[in-house]
Amino acid sequence: MSKYAKPLEKLIAEISNLPGIGTKSAQRLAFHILNMEDKEVVQLVNTIVNAKRTMHKCSVCGNLTDTNPCSICSDTRRSDNIICVVEEPKDVAALEKTKEFHGKYHVLNGLISPMDGVGADDINLKSLITRIQANPQVEEIIIATNPNVEGEATAMYIARLIKPSGIKVTRIAHGIPVGGDLEYTDEITLLKAMEGRQEL
Amino acid sequence: MSKYAKPLEKLIAEISNLPGIGTKSAQRLAFHILNMEDKEVVQLVNTIVNAKRTMHKCSVCGNLTDTNPCSICSDTRRSDNIICVVEEPKDVAALEKTKEFHGKYHVLNGLISPMDGVGADDINLKSLITRIQANPQVEEIIIATNPNVEGEATAMYIARLIKPSGIKVTRIAHGIPVGGDLEYTDEITLLKAMEGRQEL
Repeated sequence: MSKYAKPLEKLIAEISNLPGIGTKSAQRLAFHILNMEDKEVVQLVNTIVNAKRTMHKCSVCGNLTDTNPCSICSDTRRSDNIICVVEEPKDVAALEKTKEFHGKYHVLNGLISPMDGVGADDINLKSLITRIQANPQVEEIIIATNPNVEGEATAMYIARLIKPSGIKVTRIAHGIPVGGDLEYTDEITLLKAMEGRQEL
Repeated sequence: MSKYAKPLEKLIAEISNLPGIGTKSAQRLAFHILNMEDKEVVQLVNTIVNAKRTMHKCSVCGNLTDTNPCSICSDTRRSDNIICVVEEPKDVAALEKTKEFHGKYHVLNGLISPMDGVGADDINLKSLITRIQANPQVEEIIIATNPNVEGEATAMYIARLIKPSGIKVTRIAHGIPVGGDLEYTDEITLLKAMEGRQEL
C-alpha cells in the first residue's frame, strides 16, 4: 500500500519535480494546498495558466513579457544607443532595481557552454547581431553576464563578434561587493578588484 | 514600472504565498513554470485540481483520503482493537513506514492549544470518543502526538478523557533517537530517556 492516497501521491510527485523542492517540502506544500480554500486553489491554478498563456519572449530583446515588443523595448524615453546583454529575464529585473540604466536590454536566455552542448546558435544571440545591424545608432554593448566560466566565455565570444563593427563593447565590473570585507573575499574576486582599479 | 510583466508578477506573488517559499524561490519557480512545456503545466494544474477535488477527510478517522472510509479504516486485516492517535495525516504516513503497526489510526487534525485559541472541540476529538463508544472491542489508545507543549497537553487531555472508560491509554516513548549521542542530546530528552528506562 502506498503511503498516501493516489491523488495526493501524484500531487506530491508533481510538486517535487519543481526545482529546489525536495520530498519533504513537496509534502508540506501538497498538504497546504489541500487545506486551502477552494477559491484560493482556483486562483492559484488560474494564475499559473494565465501566466503561462500570456507570457512569451519579446521578439526584439528576448525578455519575458505579456506585450510585444516588451514594455522596455517600446519605452521611447529609453535610449536605443546602449544595449545591456544579460543571461536571463531575472537579470533585467535585478538591473532595473538600480533605476540608473536607461538603455535597452538583450536577454540571451542562456550562455554558451560547450560542456553542456550549448553553442552560440542555441542562445538568443543572432537576433542581437540583427538588432545592431538594423540600428546604426547603437554605440555601446554592455555585457552583464554573470562572472562564472560560461558567463565569461559568452562575454568574450560576443565581444569578439561585435568589436569589428566598431561598436564599444564593455563588461560590468567585478570586485568586492559594497559592504564586503577584503579578508573574506576570495582571491579571484580580489584579483578582479585589483585589475579593475580606477583612478580617484 | 513594475519589475516584471503583470501575469508574471501575479504568479510570483501567488507562489510566494505558499508556506516556506520566499520571494527568490517564488521567482525561480515562476520562471521554471514559464519554461515548462505546455502539456507539463496542464498536468501540474490538473494534478492540483484533481487532488483538491478528490481528497477529503475520512469520516471515521479524519485522515486524508480519496475513498470513504479510507483504505486503512476499511482494511479488514488491520485490528480494530488498537487506535493510534496522531496530529496530522503525515504522521500516519510516517508511522506506516515502520510497517509494524497493524491497528487503526485517528487523526486529530490539530492539537489543543489554548494560546492559539484552539480548544478540544476544535480538533477531531469528539469523533474518537464516539468511535470508542461504538466499538467495545477497543483495548488500547496509543497517543502519538509530537513531544512538544501542545502535543503533551493534548495527550494528557485525551488520557484523562478516556481512562475512566477502562481502556488502556499509552504514550509513545520519548528518548534518545537511534544513532543519537548522549553528549549532544538536550536535557529534557535525556530526562525523558531516563524516566522511560526499561528493564533488560
